[in-house]
Amino acid sequence: MMSNLPTEHLQVQDIGEQGLLERLQRFCPPDVIGDDAAVLVTESEQSLVVTTDMLVDGVHFSDVTTSPEDAGWRAAAANLSDLAAMGAFPLGITIGLGLPGDVSVQWVERLYQGMTECLQKYNVPIVGGDIVRSPITTLAITAFGQATANFIIRRSTAQVGDAIVVTGIHGASRAGLELLLHPEIGQNLKTDEKAALITAHQRPKPRLDVIPILKEIFPSPCSLLPAPCLISGMDSSDGLADAVLQICRASKVGAILEQSKIPLPSAFNNWLSPERSLHYALYGGEDFELVLCLPLQAALTLVQKLGASAAIVGTITPGSTVILQHENKKIPDQVLNLSQGFQHFN
Amino acid sequence: MMSNLPTEHLQVQDIGEQGLLERLQRFCPPDVIGDDAAVLVTESEQSLVVTTDMLVDGVHFSDVTTSPEDAGWRAAAANLSDLAAMGAFPLGITIGLGLPGDVSVQWVERLYQGMTECLQKYNVPIVGGDIVRSPITTLAITAFGQATANFIIRRSTAQVGDAIVVTGIHGASRAGLELLLHPEIGQNLKTDEKAALITAHQRPKPRLDVIPILKEIFPSPCSLLPAPCLISGMDSSDGLADAVLQICRASKVGAILEQSKIPLPSAFNNWLSPERSLHYALYGGEDFELVLCLPLQAALTLVQKLGASAAIVGTITPGSTVILQHENKKIPDQVLNLSQGFQHFN
Repeated sequence: MMSNLPTEHLQVQDIGEQGLLERLQRFCPPDVIGDDAAVLVTESEQSLVVTTDMLVDGVHFSDVTTSPEDAGWRAAAANLSDLAAMGAFPLGITIGLGLPGDVSVQWVERLYQGMTECLQKYNVPIVGGDIVRSPITTLAITAFGQATANFIIRRSTAQVGDAIVVTGIHGASRAGLELLLHPEIGQNLKTDEKAALITAHQRPKPRLDVIPILKEIFPSPCSLLPAPCLISGMDSSDGLADAVLQICRASKVGAILEQSKIPLPSAFNNWLSPERSLHYALYGGEDFELVLCLPLQAALTLVQKLGASAAIVGTITPGSTVILQHENKKIPDQVLNLSQGFQHFN
Repeated sequence: MMSNLPTEHLQVQDIGEQGLLERLQRFCPPDVIGDDAAVLVTESEQSLVVTTDMLVDGVHFSDVTTSPEDAGWRAAAANLSDLAAMGAFPLGITIGLGLPGDVSVQWVERLYQGMTECLQKYNVPIVGGDIVRSPITTLAITAFGQATANFIIRRSTAQVGDAIVVTGIHGASRAGLELLLHPEIGQNLKTDEKAALITAHQRPKPRLDVIPILKEIFPSPCSLLPAPCLISGMDSSDGLADAVLQICRASKVGAILEQSKIPLPSAFNNWLSPERSLHYALYGGEDFELVLCLPLQAALTLVQKLGASAAIVGTITPGSTVILQHENKKIPDQVLNLSQGFQHFN
């Protein structure tokens, strides 16, 4: 055991799995540690909502563009966003870590620091985990929350005529990534514009704040029977285009998106071409906004309550195609499809 | 896309993440697929119990000793055993998979086949997952269950005077592993003895069946207040010695274990030295039995209800040392410690 080494030089192999677990316990509430499993109290008449993510070094995060704190924040935010997208309030998360022996203990602690910074904003405890040896740093997160059974937001219940609402701007996260990858670009951006785009990429905010507002507008949007729900949707973690296409596929409907209605970061105006702005907004991904389909009147109320950066961006239509309409008609309408927005193995 | 290749030659990179997800959906109930998160109904007045495991190719499983079906079974069983160890009934599991592009689709399907064979025995659905590219095959499982708040089995509540019960034999899994690694050994074992030991390693059974029996003996073993509970314990996944030591550390007590009372596979008699038998039982691990501390009278009732292979193996004592007593006194008493049973990174 060499745990009296200065922390900045300590590697995981110096203190072992158990030593690292003990160091990380300060990030967890004391009452959930030390048993085979964690125990959480749920409220009665609530459904359990569960989501899981795997993140691999070099594939989903990298020290080149992302500090361990930001990697931790983003991993936590992505999972909380999935809960928000279902209309659920988070209860807790578990973290599985695969680590090479030569990873520095400080790196792991900084990762946990970033995760807990995000989690604490939403009062979400880390309730369990596992740390194992692995040739590649791997992070497996499972988040669970609770939702009222008649307030679960699904992808499959969009109705023809619904307005499509986005809860905020799109394209900022992708623009922030470009600024991190190519510090030489964006010279004509103001310092605070640049910082805001980079923050959008490094510290995305899960839109858990939207759920109470929805509950105010719709005290009970779904029947408990398998009947139409008044809200459907998902998050835009894989891009706005992907979200609309996934909702349409699951709901067996089409959609018209109005290009000019998609809220973009104002910084794009003096920096990016309209084509690139639109590409970032539709396919950039990781903006972690909610894309919600609901009756027009309710959509107008929601947008008004959410404020400036929320907008109605389109309408659910019969059929199965998702069409992007351009206001000025100089560009012909485009049919969107999933393959433009999808990641593949090869 | 090359998804019309014969299945046995298909690699993950041929069909991509999405193609693989579609193929694996047949292992999941249809109603939990397709949203950002899965929804499960919990009973009211139940606590949520959550456990998570990471498994890495070459560290926790290997094609050399383990078929993908067995790797899947064991991964599922280990997580269900953690729920049993808390007194919880399983509700579902999520599976995160990290896969190199050249892993065969058939390998992944066989892994899922093994997992579902185990899960179906206990009516546990796969309710979600994530599949990502990774340089090393990695499996992250999170299992969640529900338990009555006053029936949660913890490590930290063992009382001086409690009897220590094991729910079955120990050492079989490790012996099975040795037979797989060294097929030349065990010549004097009968075919069925050999097969039973190998099955103990390949297809361990989580002791979820013990929970209803405990509930029969103890309709309400814990106060809802933070008061002493009548049952404490954990599973013996890391070995019997580790389980007793962990319980004693968490409960701030000691224990005496009686070597002669530890139930061993009968096949050990004509095959292994007493020293090796004992080593396998104490440190072999992966027997996935429960190690429970409870008042003597209840312990006797439990052992009687569980049948032949369950036994009282010791007593909780004041102090903090765990002593292994040998009946014939030819071997001096031994003090057990965690470092004999622990895995380290280096």
